[in-house]
Amino acid sequence: MRDFTHDHSALALNTATLGHNMPGAGAGWSAERTIDACAERGIGGIVFWRPELQGRASAIGQYARQAGVEVVGLCRSPFLVGPLAPHGRQAVVDDFRRSIDETADLGGKILTIVVGGVEPGTKGVRESLDIVIDRLSAVLDYASERGVKLALEPLHPMYGGDRSCLPTLRDALDICDALNSDTLGVAVDVYHVWWDTDLPRQLERAGTRIMGFHLCDWLVPTTDFLLDRGMMGDGVADLRGLRSGVERAGYDGFCEVEIFSANNWWKRDPAKVLDVMVQRFRDIC
Amino acid sequence: MRDFTHDHSALALNTATLGHNMPGAGAGWSAERTIDACAERGIGGIVFWRPELQGRASAIGQYARQAGVEVVGLCRSPFLVGPLAPHGRQAVVDDFRRSIDETADLGGKILTIVVGGVEPGTKGVRESLDIVIDRLSAVLDYASERGVKLALEPLHPMYGGDRSCLPTLRDALDICDALNSDTLGVAVDVYHVWWDTDLPRQLERAGTRIMGFHLCDWLVPTTDFLLDRGMMGDGVADLRGLRSGVERAGYDGFCEVEIFSANNWWKRDPAKVLDVMVQRFRDIC
Repeated sequence: MRDFTHDHSALALNTATLGHNMPGAGAGWSAERTIDACAERGIGGIVFWRPELQGRASAIGQYARQAGVEVVGLCRSPFLVGPLAPHGRQAVVDDFRRSIDETADLGGKILTIVVGGVEPGTKGVRESLDIVIDRLSAVLDYASERGVKLALEPLHPMYGGDRSCLPTLRDALDICDALNSDTLGVAVDVYHVWWDTDLPRQLERAGTRIMGFHLCDWLVPTTDFLLDRGMMGDGVADLRGLRSGVERAGYDGFCEVEIFSANNWWKRDPAKVLDVMVQRFRDIC
Repeated sequence: MRDFTHDHSALALNTATLGHNMPGAGAGWSAERTIDACAERGIGGIVFWRPELQGRASAIGQYARQAGVEVVGLCRSPFLVGPLAPHGRQAVVDDFRRSIDETADLGGKILTIVVGGVEPGTKGVRESLDIVIDRLSAVLDYASERGVKLALEPLHPMYGGDRSCLPTLRDALDICDALNSDTLGVAVDVYHVWWDTDLPRQLERAGTRIMGFHLCDWLVPTTDFLLDRGMMGDGVADLRGLRSGVERAGYDGFCEVEIFSANNWWKRDPAKVLDVMVQRFRDIC
């Protein structure tokens, strides 16, 4: 297991942690200022969200590389299915391809896939998962041509209805098995999987298909379905145990901190949030 | 699969569906009035919550039997572990035994077990599950003497931190296997398990250890962690598919409707809620 006590170059910032800082939102930091703040602190990687790019993906990617910060990837694909997805297969595939383009323009290696919830008019997750497989298969070759890997992220089962009919790593790996493509892998976010006693077995099964590892913490109590994630160490997730499993499976990439926290971390000075993030990463994770 | 279109005698009311109607709460129905309302509608069973008993368990049980309504069981054991459990092992075991006594006094066959969340000072669910096993083992003989079965109910993983470190049927069956007692089985609540693609396999594994089957629905969106359950048919759970799996495993007991719904069903006339419940059960489930 890697020792981060004295080296946090494997730490990556997901900009959601700063409340998707954009001109006119949060503290109003530009992408460039956020990159600089990461570089100053020795944070090795960064992950952006699509709305932050504003048509400037190439320029932002270049700025990051010049600053010595690796663009790990982009959040995220459109929902592929369910009540929040674009309307109809073609609209989903078109936007999916655009998100692949944006990842490539940014110079990012990985596009995170959040699959969406239960397709209206159906019951349970089975039919929706079949739609996910169909829509993934429609873009795999294109992603491969553009040099972008697709990381299927299982989301916590509490999002099963609206945001993700893919509730466990087991389900994500079943899809990877079905599509059998080097372009497709999984992202493991402690927020979504911390409770899953089957995880050690599934991580072993995942092996080198693990394309991302995301950090935050599960607070007790959790007061909001979406925007009440905790900073590492403030919750009950076994962060070291989870990282140990991921690394035993062969993962040696970035550890990406992604904290949605409307009432706590998003209200603080982003510079201080980054300082705490670095310290907690070294001490706790 | 049983056909309930013209026969709902297998339907049971969990009184939570009426907002735990008690003197001074909800519509203020007494236990007896609730029993009468079930009997009038041909609802075959009823499940009470401990606070409703107010020391009158035997009398309430007798009243139900005379009205032709079977007391299916009692909700619920104390939390056995985690931040909401009674303080310390002895306090948990003592209250656990009292809840077994109340079930027996009521003439109920089944006490539902909600295990509680992550034990303070620990991380992840593993240590907490071991504490659950220890505390269950301390009461199994006593429950057996009193003729009460204990039904371990896995709760949705969104309760992992505070209410239940037992997130899946697989985890519940692992505990049953470890303790290997006829007194111990599982309760399957569609609200908690609807998203789980591993469920068919686990239901088959469970077989005759299934002691209860609970109905409601998962709403999209769900707006409250605890009190926003849907009436059958209003959400995305595959209710028939779930019942089919439970019955294929050998279950032929009551289907218990348990709907926590502070802003919808609890605000309605309880008599009308029961009427809708009966109709939905016949039409949808």
